[in-house]
Amino acid sequence: MSTAPRRLPPRALLFDVFGTCVDWRTSIARQAAALGRRYGRADVDWEAFADAWRVRYQPQMDTVRAGMREWATLDVLHRESLDEVLAEFAINLRPDDCDALTLAWHRLEPWPDAVAGLARLRRRFIVAPASNGHIALQVNLARHAGLTWDAVLGAEIAHAYKPDPHVYLRSVAALGLEPGEVMMVAAHNGDLQAAARCGLRVAFVARPREYGPQQATDLVADAGIELAVSDFGALAAALGA
Amino acid sequence: MSTAPRRLPPRALLFDVFGTCVDWRTSIARQAAALGRRYGRADVDWEAFADAWRVRYQPQMDTVRAGMREWATLDVLHRESLDEVLAEFAINLRPDDCDALTLAWHRLEPWPDAVAGLARLRRRFIVAPASNGHIALQVNLARHAGLTWDAVLGAEIAHAYKPDPHVYLRSVAALGLEPGEVMMVAAHNGDLQAAARCGLRVAFVARPREYGPQQATDLVADAGIELAVSDFGALAAALGA
Repeated sequence: MSTAPRRLPPRALLFDVFGTCVDWRTSIARQAAALGRRYGRADVDWEAFADAWRVRYQPQMDTVRAGMREWATLDVLHRESLDEVLAEFAINLRPDDCDALTLAWHRLEPWPDAVAGLARLRRRFIVAPASNGHIALQVNLARHAGLTWDAVLGAEIAHAYKPDPHVYLRSVAALGLEPGEVMMVAAHNGDLQAAARCGLRVAFVARPREYGPQQATDLVADAGIELAVSDFGALAAALGA
Repeated sequence: MSTAPRRLPPRALLFDVFGTCVDWRTSIARQAAALGRRYGRADVDWEAFADAWRVRYQPQMDTVRAGMREWATLDVLHRESLDEVLAEFAINLRPDDCDALTLAWHRLEPWPDAVAGLARLRRRFIVAPASNGHIALQVNLARHAGLTWDAVLGAEIAHAYKPDPHVYLRSVAALGLEPGEVMMVAAHNGDLQAAARCGLRVAFVARPREYGPQQATDLVADAGIELAVSDFGALAAALGA
């Protein structure tokens, strides 16, 4: 699916990363399974393990959003939730392996179209992640996956997590632009709705397997989303890049 | 000149930008001269104009460093000081041309070795600017000059100006590294001395024409600077990149 933009092209594109640029589920499952083999745990459903780890992410961030705790990097949040997930799956890892597995989130594989599509978009537009991942994670992830950014924006420079409006507005301001000059690109309607409420333009990229073959949400763009495409190459074509 | 590093290579390199990566003096003089021609001002020494504009930069930042004013972007500081420099040179520009000329600092040419040398260094090391220039300026400058960074660090994420230790330490922390894992690269001994006091490793790159043919300072590295090289290619060679 692809709908043509009705307005002038934006000056910059901000990208969600987990799920939009990279396939966290398969990447985490594969790295956790490799570690699990060293513990003789071929019995674990490592994709379910990845899902269980990821699902703890929103409630953790909610405690920061509600002002109940200080802003913390995803390394801190992921390390905390890992203990819970390991307990849920009855897996015992040495603490140093827990620390190492936490850094699996710095080594995620890109979707097949992401590297070439982003490089094509970057020739015409400023591109930057506006992710809830902190700067160090984004730097390591981009170098691992082959994504090239013009800057790393998002949660850490705002000390807030999406969909808090500060994350979008601080990222736009860091580029010296107005919200209407910037387009948020994400595979998640909630992210795009929040960006649109801040005055950003929005583009939905379908990632119908982000949550595996049974995915039931974010299969298509919500009504009112300006642009909806099937991948980054289609986004580049729609924006004239 | 080149001295071999005695320790393991760093994990990341932070770069000063104005003077170290780009030739601000020639670039500003050329852009100001082009504007001046439209006002019939072929009589002005535009390199002296560039020097006069640049020299106002440190006292302006001093007022922020002393807590006398809030942190402001270089666009704000450059626009203020431009009025003084124009008065000094008895030049009258329309306000919109003053605004446009202020953005000349977003369009500076790289030193001849900078683009290839930085690309070579980036294959092995995380690279980021730790400049007093804000994020938008660094993004525009990097795209103009052909410099590719992994992230844009420095003054804006610290809300302080070098040589305030917060700029170095906040930049190191944003990469999730320790100061001893990071090397500051600059053509200015003062910048490197301040970084070294924060525990960073330091490399001096000679830019003996930054201030024109009469330059008398920063011609060689101070005693105690770990590594001193003639350009970014020599830096890559010295670091095994």
